[in-house]
Amino acid sequence: MVLNLKGLGKIEIGLLDYLLIFVPVAVYLELTHGSGTYIFAASAISIIPLAAIMGKATEHLTEKLGPGLGGFLNATFGNAAELIIAIIAIKEGMFSVVKASITGSIIGNILLVLGLSFLAGGLKQKSLKFNATAANLNSTMLILSTSGLVVPAVIHSLLKNQSITNAAIDGLNNTISLAIAIVLFTTYVFSLVFSLKSHKHLYGAADEEAEGHKGAEGWSTGKSLSVLLAATVGISFMSEFLVKSLESATKSLGMNEVFVGVIVVALVGNAAEHSTAIFMALKNKMDVSVSIAIGSSSQVAMFLAPIMVFLSYFIGPAPMDLSFTALETLSIVFSVLLVNFISADGQTHWMEGVQLLALYVILGIAYFFIY
Amino acid sequence: MVLNLKGLGKIEIGLLDYLLIFVPVAVYLELTHGSGTYIFAASAISIIPLAAIMGKATEHLTEKLGPGLGGFLNATFGNAAELIIAIIAIKEGMFSVVKASITGSIIGNILLVLGLSFLAGGLKQKSLKFNATAANLNSTMLILSTSGLVVPAVIHSLLKNQSITNAAIDGLNNTISLAIAIVLFTTYVFSLVFSLKSHKHLYGAADEEAEGHKGAEGWSTGKSLSVLLAATVGISFMSEFLVKSLESATKSLGMNEVFVGVIVVALVGNAAEHSTAIFMALKNKMDVSVSIAIGSSSQVAMFLAPIMVFLSYFIGPAPMDLSFTALETLSIVFSVLLVNFISADGQTHWMEGVQLLALYVILGIAYFFIY
Amino acid sequence: MVLNLKGLGKIEIGLLDYLLIFVPVAVYLELTHGSGTYIFAASAISIIPLAAIMGKATEHLTEKLGPGLGGFLNATFGNAAELIIAIIAIKEGMFSVVKASITGSIIGNILLVLGLSFLAGGLKQKSLKFNATAANLNSTMLILSTSGLVVPAVIHSLLKNQSITNAAIDGLNNTISLAIAIVLFTTYVFSLVFSLKSHKHLYGAADEEAEGHKGAEGWSTGKSLSVLLAATVGISFMSEFLVKSLESATKSLGMNEVFVGVIVVALVGNAAEHSTAIFMALKNKMDVSVSIAIGSSSQVAMFLAPIMVFLSYFIGPAPMDLSFTALETLSIVFSVLLVNFISADGQTHWMEGVQLLALYVILGIAYFFIY
Repeated sequence: MVLNLKGLGKIEIGLLDYLLIFVPVAVYLELTHGSGTYIFAASAISIIPLAAIMGKATEHLTEKLGPGLGGFLNATFGNAAELIIAIIAIKEGMFSVVKASITGSIIGNILLVLGLSFLAGGLKQKSLKFNATAANLNSTMLILSTSGLVVPAVIHSLLKNQSITNAAIDGLNNTISLAIAIVLFTTYVFSLVFSLKSHKHLYGAADEEAEGHKGAEGWSTGKSLSVLLAATVGISFMSEFLVKSLESATKSLGMNEVFVGVIVVALVGNAAEHSTAIFMALKNKMDVSVSIAIGSSSQVAMFLAPIMVFLSYFIGPAPMDLSFTALETLSIVFSVLLVNFISADGQTHWMEGVQLLALYVILGIAYFFIY
Repeated sequence: MVLNLKGLGKIEIGLLDYLLIFVPVAVYLELTHGSGTYIFAASAISIIPLAAIMGKATEHLTEKLGPGLGGFLNATFGNAAELIIAIIAIKEGMFSVVKASITGSIIGNILLVLGLSFLAGGLKQKSLKFNATAANLNSTMLILSTSGLVVPAVIHSLLKNQSITNAAIDGLNNTISLAIAIVLFTTYVFSLVFSLKSHKHLYGAADEEAEGHKGAEGWSTGKSLSVLLAATVGISFMSEFLVKSLESATKSLGMNEVFVGVIVVALVGNAAEHSTAIFMALKNKMDVSVSIAIGSSSQVAMFLAPIMVFLSYFIGPAPMDLSFTALETLSIVFSVLLVNFISADGQTHWMEGVQLLALYVILGIAYFFIY
Repeated sequence: MVLNLKGLGKIEIGLLDYLLIFVPVAVYLELTHGSGTYIFAASAISIIPLAAIMGKATEHLTEKLGPGLGGFLNATFGNAAELIIAIIAIKEGMFSVVKASITGSIIGNILLVLGLSFLAGGLKQKSLKFNATAANLNSTMLILSTSGLVVPAVIHSLLKNQSITNAAIDGLNNTISLAIAIVLFTTYVFSLVFSLKSHKHLYGAADEEAEGHKGAEGWSTGKSLSVLLAATVGISFMSEFLVKSLESATKSLGMNEVFVGVIVVALVGNAAEHSTAIFMALKNKMDVSVSIAIGSSSQVAMFLAPIMVFLSYFIGPAPMDLSFTALETLSIVFSVLLVNFISADGQTHWMEGVQLLALYVILGIAYFFIY
């Protein structure tokens, strides 16, 4: 992302660009059948600059196409890296990794991104203010959408206590998850109508700010599309390497798949949004930071998660359900409650950042030991 | 209810009145030993206009008797349909249906009624405002009263893990539920003192509005009492038919009792309040809608639920406890948290309505498959 | 504590001073091998005036030493009674009593102290106002710190379902609890920097008020230290008697250890703060009451609980973990959510006090029957 930060922006971009060197490194390691851990590390790192480039291209495209189609594009390609990783993992039937990355995206955005944003902004300014109305809009949307995600987990735990066969439980789980995915996705379509048509004035201020950092030089639609295509191909390959090396890497590092999904995969897949949110916080544009962090979490719950369920019917070895683990469910509930309380008053400071990060570390410890 | 809606109100009343035809239909089907499903449907529908008539009579009576006795009457007869259905079900020992209807009343008022009210009001006006102070008063009351309801479920699940006999567990459950019912009921009595005596000015605005729709022509106390008596008798019979046909109806429709209790019985028993709340929303009197929806839920938790426990000692085959299922407990917790977040800022729009309804549909799906 | 309440203050101190008679009573009973129940009662009562004296000495010391060192002293000795009781219990390996007293301190402060404060203040004045910003600061801190306490319980329940040995489960529990204790304690250190250095202006108003009740006559540092030492020695002995007689007392009274820990030990250990909060409410200084009640709860979660885990490694027969029971976990979650909703609007009345007390009674009933 091009940031007008008097040199700092350019250094940042430079650093991200250098990371592209890991693309050929990952390819070389894969072709020479190198160690799974190194392939995992190289492909994970290489997705970060690719996701940033894809984000930049999408933003230029959105500028040209206007808010209607642009909003849809943004929602789709803004999460493209996550979606591509998920598609590869669904193909391989690694559903627990897919669900862990959904959880990780939700709590990572709320706890890690918002925490770092509050800390970064709070170290520069004593008191940080943001638009409480817009933040409440987003965080109420979030609490409603995540409650949809929590229901299948509850149902799953109740089903296990009933005297029916495992096959019957799996069937019911899938039926319920599909039904809930349809409800969540329909709600998401309504929310697009709400934010892009009927109530777009409520989102106006944040959009305007966000547009400010896109840089003056617009790209042509052709250039944007070519870059988008190239980045998509790059991410696809790197994700394939990432997912395939995940098992051997986690084993040799002594970590479990859920931890890797919640912490590592979610971090990599959301790297572009993360850096934007934190840079906006450093520029004291807390509205944009809060809107990116909370908005991305809602989008994962109402758009990405249902899409992944639908896709599993076409490309997966079996349908994927939405029954998260107890720890995942609780992580989501806690994080969502927290962000609602914190965003209610429209002001924050560095200590709230420390506390959000503390909870992220605590949950990270939990995922490290539990699977 | 007579609504001064320039014709619309009279049409509404007319439609409800036509539904009275289902009273003789239900009686006929019962006498001719008709299909349980049809008896269930006919008696369920016939309760709706009867509850509306009872509501009208209670309101006229409240006007005559003043806020003190009137408030008590309103609380009792405003929920009379629910109470009568519950009494019949308690007599039959159908405790899971009784508890399901308590859950259904709480979440139905918060999710369905408030959701429809926000949607109906929001489609007419871009932004809906209501008195945040009054709404917070009600919703804090709700969170406190429902936490009382949640404790017995937790205790029940803990007791199951202890090495004591089932009879001992049942005994403890009943003791704890009775103790909690007494605490909740005592709190309810204090809340009547609070809202009718010490702090009635806080409820003033909403009351004034609510009185506005009662119509100019007051009924005499005699007329009100006769109508009240007639409606009570009608509802009693219809409820008896409803409860007795419930088992065969649910079987032939492939539904479970808890789903019917949470969704169908709760809908029927609360039909009168539901229609009032939505009509008030259409007239942009959101204060009244919010107060009816949240207030009714509190009343169910603090007044109806304890009364049902007390009654079970006198008319039931055994004492009823308050240990709800895990899904019921979670539904209540989620719905109550939601309404607190939504009502905090005193403004809403159609999208919040869509989201509340989405959660209602998601929970409905869960209850349909789980029992 | 010396309260300028026109006579009332002196009566209060007088009453507390009379309770010191229970110190020799407890010693006499212990030496003559008296009944455990009487020793328990006498030592419990005797801790109340000792804790009040210790609180007074700490406050005088804080005045002399300034906010930096003073703040740390206040945090340590303000909870000294609780800490001493916990140390004795940890030595004896009575971990469930220690954890129960942590739970009891958190919910006791939020439900009992805040409930009594709202009730006491609300009976004198119709509407009570307090600084919503300061209250939100404290209650957000509380929600974040208690979520750290809840995670180990979730992990513990998940571990029980895994096919590993009990010894391995205990080991993991201890590792995770220690890691989380370190995170919580680090966060606490940051919060001291926040409240005593970087953002002390936010806490200014409440401090000023709180200082108002310290009385005009300052003590010399020497006198404060001597009194502090004497009270510490007194509490240490009384706590030893309390903890050692706890088992036989609970048995003969038919109560379980967790109930005694949550209700009795927590009440005794916090008696000093409790009385201050309620007296401040009577003087309509709700800011101080709310700050004491919510602040003490945060301190227990972020400071006392981690310290107890650390101490168990040095003085306990085994390391103590932080996995609370399901009922404890839920009590904390509910109480913390409640206080967040109630403190959000910065105003209250007697009915909210009644409701908080009602929840305290309901939870008390639960603890009485469940263990």
